[in-house]
Amino acid sequence: MWAMPTKRLFITLEGTDGVGKSTHARLLKRWLQKKGVRVLLTREPGGGALAEKIRGLLLNPAIRMAPLVELFLYEAARADHLKTVIQPALKKKRVVICDRFTDATLAYQGFARGLSLTDIAALNEVASEGLKPDLTLLLDLSPKEGLAKARARTTSGSGDRLENEGLAFQRRVRHGYLSVAKRDKKRIRVVPVQSTIEATQGLIRDIVASVLKR
Amino acid sequence: MWAMPTKRLFITLEGTDGVGKSTHARLLKRWLQKKGVRVLLTREPGGGALAEKIRGLLLNPAIRMAPLVELFLYEAARADHLKTVIQPALKKKRVVICDRFTDATLAYQGFARGLSLTDIAALNEVASEGLKPDLTLLLDLSPKEGLAKARARTTSGSGDRLENEGLAFQRRVRHGYLSVAKRDKKRIRVVPVQSTIEATQGLIRDIVASVLKR
Repeated sequence: MWAMPTKRLFITLEGTDGVGKSTHARLLKRWLQKKGVRVLLTREPGGGALAEKIRGLLLNPAIRMAPLVELFLYEAARADHLKTVIQPALKKKRVVICDRFTDATLAYQGFARGLSLTDIAALNEVASEGLKPDLTLLLDLSPKEGLAKARARTTSGSGDRLENEGLAFQRRVRHGYLSVAKRDKKRIRVVPVQSTIEATQGLIRDIVASVLKR
Repeated sequence: MWAMPTKRLFITLEGTDGVGKSTHARLLKRWLQKKGVRVLLTREPGGGALAEKIRGLLLNPAIRMAPLVELFLYEAARADHLKTVIQPALKKKRVVICDRFTDATLAYQGFARGLSLTDIAALNEVASEGLKPDLTLLLDLSPKEGLAKARARTTSGSGDRLENEGLAFQRRVRHGYLSVAKRDKKRIRVVPVQSTIEATQGLIRDIVASVLKR
């Protein structure tokens, strides 16, 4: 058994829709807490009243907006989330687990929607004030299997968005994530999603344990 | 008398609060229209439903936000304004007069509020898709005189915001504008505000006429 870390650690979970990020984030949080680690679990877009308002803009069907405008709104929400949630927790030496962060913007807005990767990287850098995750867990699964899993998990609705976006879109997102992972192998660890949640979570715990012991 | 130009031309008006930008923008527009030039006058943040919503966020006293978050929201509004108003008008070979643009972000958020000028320049570049004004008219006046003018113009309220921001803030904005102007003398023309509107407008018309004849 390893000792409770007092160092701050910023972990992000990434992956295409349906791979089980939020489930694994929750399980990882519980496991760490049982070991006496103080953990904050959060997700984008998160924060306070502002994040809710921005989410309202992004989801309002009456407001049409260009992908570039959407990108700036996501980055505004990120900057707020960073300042009000992530930075304060890291200052208190919490382990912060964040469901999606800057890599998601590269994969979704860049690789999948076609905005400039250079522009996105510049905006990510500014919005995150240069904060890089210490560890990024990229849950990897073929979009077809992700869709099947998402459908199996719920009786209604949850697979709809995936279907709407389409498999081709999810494939571009996956390609984006894997491309980003190749460029930063030290930070981004690809976790192949296994047939059971327990098996996948086991891989995640091994990686996190080794990083905490460093 | 010079011929009606068919070329597109993007003119921005800048300056600290109270120098008379909107008055001069309106007078310039009328003068050009009388010469048969097709003009679109607009201002930031402008556009459609989205700009209104973003303005609502920025002005909502219940929502506290960091200067960086504010910056991203302004850039989101700018990207929308550019795509929905400015670019379509320039494509139709209109002369577009815009009350404030990217230089204002450098002067206000950068020089006056202290955000990184490099970061702002990067965001400005992305939000404006690299579009630079063909001509920027920087109306220059000491903030003290600007405040006095603003007070004299109105019977109530209009000077309040200036007072709230404070003269020290307006002085930083002015210093910022003049610094930006020094770096781009070809594009940015400093117009010293004269004792009468007519005299200042005369200087503006001379500059615009010479640019249109180029």
